[in-house]
Amino acid sequence: MQGNFKYSNPTTLYFGDHSIQYLNDELSKYGSNVLFIYGGNSIKKNGLYDEVLQILKSNQKNVFEDAGVMPNPTLDKLYEGIKIARENKVDFILAVGGGSVVDYAKAVSVSIHCEEDPWDKYFDRFEDVSCKIVPMGCILTMVGTGSEMNGGSVITNTQTKEKIGHVFGENVFPKFAILNPVYTFTVPHYQMIAGFFDIMSHILEQYFSGTDDNTSDYIAEGLMKSLIHSSKIAVKDPTHYEARSNIMWTSTWALNTLIHQGKPGDWMVHMMGQAIGAYTDATHGMTLAVVSLPYYRYIMKDGLVKFKRFAINVWNVNPENKTDEEIAKEGLYCLENYMKELGLVMKSKELGVTESMIRDIARKSFILEGGYKKLSFDEVVEILEASM
Amino acid sequence: MQGNFKYSNPTTLYFGDHSIQYLNDELSKYGSNVLFIYGGNSIKKNGLYDEVLQILKSNQKNVFEDAGVMPNPTLDKLYEGIKIARENKVDFILAVGGGSVVDYAKAVSVSIHCEEDPWDKYFDRFEDVSCKIVPMGCILTMVGTGSEMNGGSVITNTQTKEKIGHVFGENVFPKFAILNPVYTFTVPHYQMIAGFFDIMSHILEQYFSGTDDNTSDYIAEGLMKSLIHSSKIAVKDPTHYEARSNIMWTSTWALNTLIHQGKPGDWMVHMMGQAIGAYTDATHGMTLAVVSLPYYRYIMKDGLVKFKRFAINVWNVNPENKTDEEIAKEGLYCLENYMKELGLVMKSKELGVTESMIRDIARKSFILEGGYKKLSFDEVVEILEASM
Repeated sequence: MQGNFKYSNPTTLYFGDHSIQYLNDELSKYGSNVLFIYGGNSIKKNGLYDEVLQILKSNQKNVFEDAGVMPNPTLDKLYEGIKIARENKVDFILAVGGGSVVDYAKAVSVSIHCEEDPWDKYFDRFEDVSCKIVPMGCILTMVGTGSEMNGGSVITNTQTKEKIGHVFGENVFPKFAILNPVYTFTVPHYQMIAGFFDIMSHILEQYFSGTDDNTSDYIAEGLMKSLIHSSKIAVKDPTHYEARSNIMWTSTWALNTLIHQGKPGDWMVHMMGQAIGAYTDATHGMTLAVVSLPYYRYIMKDGLVKFKRFAINVWNVNPENKTDEEIAKEGLYCLENYMKELGLVMKSKELGVTESMIRDIARKSFILEGGYKKLSFDEVVEILEASM
Repeated sequence: MQGNFKYSNPTTLYFGDHSIQYLNDELSKYGSNVLFIYGGNSIKKNGLYDEVLQILKSNQKNVFEDAGVMPNPTLDKLYEGIKIARENKVDFILAVGGGSVVDYAKAVSVSIHCEEDPWDKYFDRFEDVSCKIVPMGCILTMVGTGSEMNGGSVITNTQTKEKIGHVFGENVFPKFAILNPVYTFTVPHYQMIAGFFDIMSHILEQYFSGTDDNTSDYIAEGLMKSLIHSSKIAVKDPTHYEARSNIMWTSTWALNTLIHQGKPGDWMVHMMGQAIGAYTDATHGMTLAVVSLPYYRYIMKDGLVKFKRFAINVWNVNPENKTDEEIAKEGLYCLENYMKELGLVMKSKELGVTESMIRDIARKSFILEGGYKKLSFDEVVEILEASM
């Protein structure tokens, strides 16, 4: 474990197929004006909308709805949500949906009492929250982002074509998250597999960094093995409770800060993926899928020891009579086969990326330090070209 | 993940070789009368006592000392600590030491304002706390128990020869724990290796239960692999920072409730080990070491699938051309070799157990459901005989 750090996580998780029973206890802790945030009609179809509304009413809450949160929540939508919340003096936010809904709910929670423009303050200048935060809890219906137990919030500015994530502090984390694997059964296949790869990408982007021996990497390997095992089952049998429950739990622990402790991180795949998302409105997990292999193959030699370890510990590659590079390549080949088995989109042109967009997408890709290599602008272009 | 459960953990961890710097921030949250609990002279020798006292004084705290907490804290000592705390109206407890000191500090924290006898209430009747709890934080100098991020507290009643653990709720968890791997460098060799096996035992006792596929078991495998790797280094080179830091982190996550989520547990090794401890005052980790192999070999056939998985995933046993039983046995053989490499005590007679004690120790061993098999009294005797 490297460096000096603080670890704590204030979110309470309620897990299981009857976990909604805990909502009453939580609601009693907060005020009576509740902003009920959700996305489309899926929660109306599966009955969750009615169930949640009934629980809110039975707790004497005044419910104000903010519906229609899109997969890539926009700044315009955020302004709309802030307006509803302010007009109705909301005391508490209940977000019901996937990571986008939870991300959006966080942005609303820190903007209601903020006098500045939230885009400028949080997503352009990356400033800390300096106003009162309206507490938020969530009921998750889709997995992948890990937003249910962290401070991440990604908002898209359609005017400037920027999709930017702010990682807020613990005061913005959901107060509680209700995780019922059954709610994820009805997620459409495309969104389901994209979510699986979002989880995988979160783990990979924390794993592929650092050159030391670190407990966090062993935990990451365990999470990857569990995810690989269960996602292969779920892709064939989406209502397999055991598989879906393991995926849901893995998703939370993949990005709730645990496996990042005591080590650096990479996150260039997310930077390029988010830039593709801002230009194409493609599903987040798929944007990560198309850039991952080109990126990891590009940096492989710079982090050879870890790529070799990845092959052996995660994919059981037999290292006998092979060079380190051959072993590392075989690991990435296993990752490729796994991605194909899930049925992920493997090429960015299939997401609507065109040759003429590439330099613009590269310009909108924040270049971070990276886990093993800091890319130049031209290298970002080269990787995006390879993703086509 | 099985069942429905709540997960949250209120303890804040400060990790690293400069983590004591965070103590000032934490002290400012609590009242001025501080009970400073510690064990023997080791913190006076290595300078930590002076450093902590200086920080307490610079924060204008009135410091009351409760020193001399023994490796197996006794009920008589607890009465003494309660008396000091009551006489001085303490607002906050700072525990500096290993798991025994932290366990003891928890027992004091729930007894100061308790009108009943703490042994009767907490360790005999296992009742919940119904009085005000004095908040407690800790600075860890020895690893193993995980007490720094959980509610466990083990107290020994020397009159009745009972060593009993109560697992308190979140309100009793340390408010914070300062984890500096350097503080563990000077732990005597015998206590160090006993602590390593205490960690291993915590993971094993949660791992060897359940028949489903569960993410918690994958995380447990990761923790075991990190522990095995780092403990083999530390036993030869106790001041190896990387190894000691990984062990410290692993120790906390081995018993802070994470790897127990969504699955049952076993804990019979702890039940037998604690009974041996009550009769011999032997070091906790060594009492677990002597009963582990006899116990796991006894129940192996009842949990064969998991014992086979343990062999392959943790010890890289090659399963080709072997029966499941042969693979499982080879895994336990690897565990035995690892224990010998650490230099653990392998036989209970070396801890002072005599033939004439065995039936009494068995009587004091709580018989739990177990992970794969509920033992009879005669079977406990048989396993204790085999541990000789």
